[in-house]
Amino acid sequence: MTPILFALPGNEAMTAQLSALSGWEQGSLQVRRFPDGESYVRYHSEVKGRQVVLVCTLDRPDDRFMPMYFAASIARDLGAASVGLVAPYLAYMRHDAIFNPGEGITSAHFARLVSGVFHWMVTIDPHLHRHHDLAEIYTIPTRVVRAAPAISQWIAANVPQPLVIGPDSESEQWAAEVARGAGCPCIVLEKIRRGDHDVEVSVPDTERWLHHTPVIVDDIASTARTMIAAVGHVRKAGLPPPLCVAVHPLFAGSAFEDLQASGVASTASCDTVPHSSNAIPVASLLAPALADMTGAAA
Amino acid sequence: MTPILFALPGNEAMTAQLSALSGWEQGSLQVRRFPDGESYVRYHSEVKGRQVVLVCTLDRPDDRFMPMYFAASIARDLGAASVGLVAPYLAYMRHDAIFNPGEGITSAHFARLVSGVFHWMVTIDPHLHRHHDLAEIYTIPTRVVRAAPAISQWIAANVPQPLVIGPDSESEQWAAEVARGAGCPCIVLEKIRRGDHDVEVSVPDTERWLHHTPVIVDDIASTARTMIAAVGHVRKAGLPPPLCVAVHPLFAGSAFEDLQASGVASTASCDTVPHSSNAIPVASLLAPALADMTGAAA
Repeated sequence: MTPILFALPGNEAMTAQLSALSGWEQGSLQVRRFPDGESYVRYHSEVKGRQVVLVCTLDRPDDRFMPMYFAASIARDLGAASVGLVAPYLAYMRHDAIFNPGEGITSAHFARLVSGVFHWMVTIDPHLHRHHDLAEIYTIPTRVVRAAPAISQWIAANVPQPLVIGPDSESEQWAAEVARGAGCPCIVLEKIRRGDHDVEVSVPDTERWLHHTPVIVDDIASTARTMIAAVGHVRKAGLPPPLCVAVHPLFAGSAFEDLQASGVASTASCDTVPHSSNAIPVASLLAPALADMTGAAA
Repeated sequence: MTPILFALPGNEAMTAQLSALSGWEQGSLQVRRFPDGESYVRYHSEVKGRQVVLVCTLDRPDDRFMPMYFAASIARDLGAASVGLVAPYLAYMRHDAIFNPGEGITSAHFARLVSGVFHWMVTIDPHLHRHHDLAEIYTIPTRVVRAAPAISQWIAANVPQPLVIGPDSESEQWAAEVARGAGCPCIVLEKIRRGDHDVEVSVPDTERWLHHTPVIVDDIASTARTMIAAVGHVRKAGLPPPLCVAVHPLFAGSAFEDLQASGVASTASCDTVPHSSNAIPVASLLAPALADMTGAAA
């Protein structure tokens, strides 16, 4: 029997795409809130003996956790053979160190919760910085899918004369991979320190890129401050208005509107988090990973 | 060293009262949300080697869970001798059975999460219905504190000629206990079935109570539908406008306004959940239970 996919609220489109790509059934899962704010979860499809795959992206995670946890626990109660999680965006990965006394590594605490109720997890480009591998904090098998191939393909198909730009040194490897896949050049914005308080960010070799379309790529757009700063540097250097591409379009508060107002040509994002900027589908990258994790034929 | 108390957001008043009653230090715990919706938790007081007591009532629990879980996890990381939870209102206790296929007993799943990170828990009047004891679902030591003595005392001090009324048969024992403590009579509204579709709720011995002040007591006021119906029955029977007393004033949406508009004289609640109707303090009932659980002198 093939695995069965269930969407947590907001993940219906991604789940339908994964179902179409894998040929696996999409089951019916009811999730609602009681008036008092408690969550109610009910399976309307039979899960006994089946490999259950829950699709739940984890932007704004606090509110999403409990229904997801109940859905996994109930699938286990109902006799599911296994319960896997597809989290196109994985939460709490940026709290990966103790910066001040009295803090904790919440990435590890969150990983313990997820590892306690799921049998495996697949995610896209988690923010691996001080943790180098999810296995450092997750005790269940995990699979990381890279969004770069989808972004490269989108750039190659949609952008004339692209120049991929990494907004800071942390994004260097990431931007280089995207550019390589798109067959285009790549630069990373450079910090030039002139003194203790005099730091300028500059675009290297500006002259060379005046007839290219700048494409600023970053993994997470939350407040979008990094991107907005990069847009400013690119414009100041005299390049044309840039495109912005984000893997995970969190866009907190007015971040998206602020970015749109900052002088961009337009903004595109992967559909790891549902957002009006979604233009780059990632389901086809997830599907083979799901097939591997469930051990079923795709 | 005495235990140290920390308030999760919204529990500052209760924590200050418990600190005053116990003589225990109230520590400083920072909890905030990042723009992207993730929670940040930091201890500003030393917890190493100390018994940590977190105060976190659990109305609207989904949003509250993650900060509470992180606070407990971080206290453990920081070397706390133990981490206890005071949850004046305990969530998810009403999901204590499977009513339809595909559902789960979320009370047990929630208990597993709490038991996984706390060493003990104290709560007030959890909704024990099909579970008869918290030990059926909680694997950590728990202590249940009854609010009845505080309610009885409040009624005796504030209500002339009280008549305690239980709104339905489920509330009978509870109402009887409150009435006993207040030294006043008690009745429970009776369902009289005249046929399949003809059920009337009546006030027994109406004549006898015309000069009493009706006091409707219930454990949880969520949508307040039960209380509002009871107010209607009491008024229909010709009794004076009743007082309403709730242990846990959840009051979802417009429930409180609806209750106030239903013909009540006024509404009072225990301060297990912060609400404008709070009139009955319960900290003095909690303090001895905390002293017992921590094994320290109160």
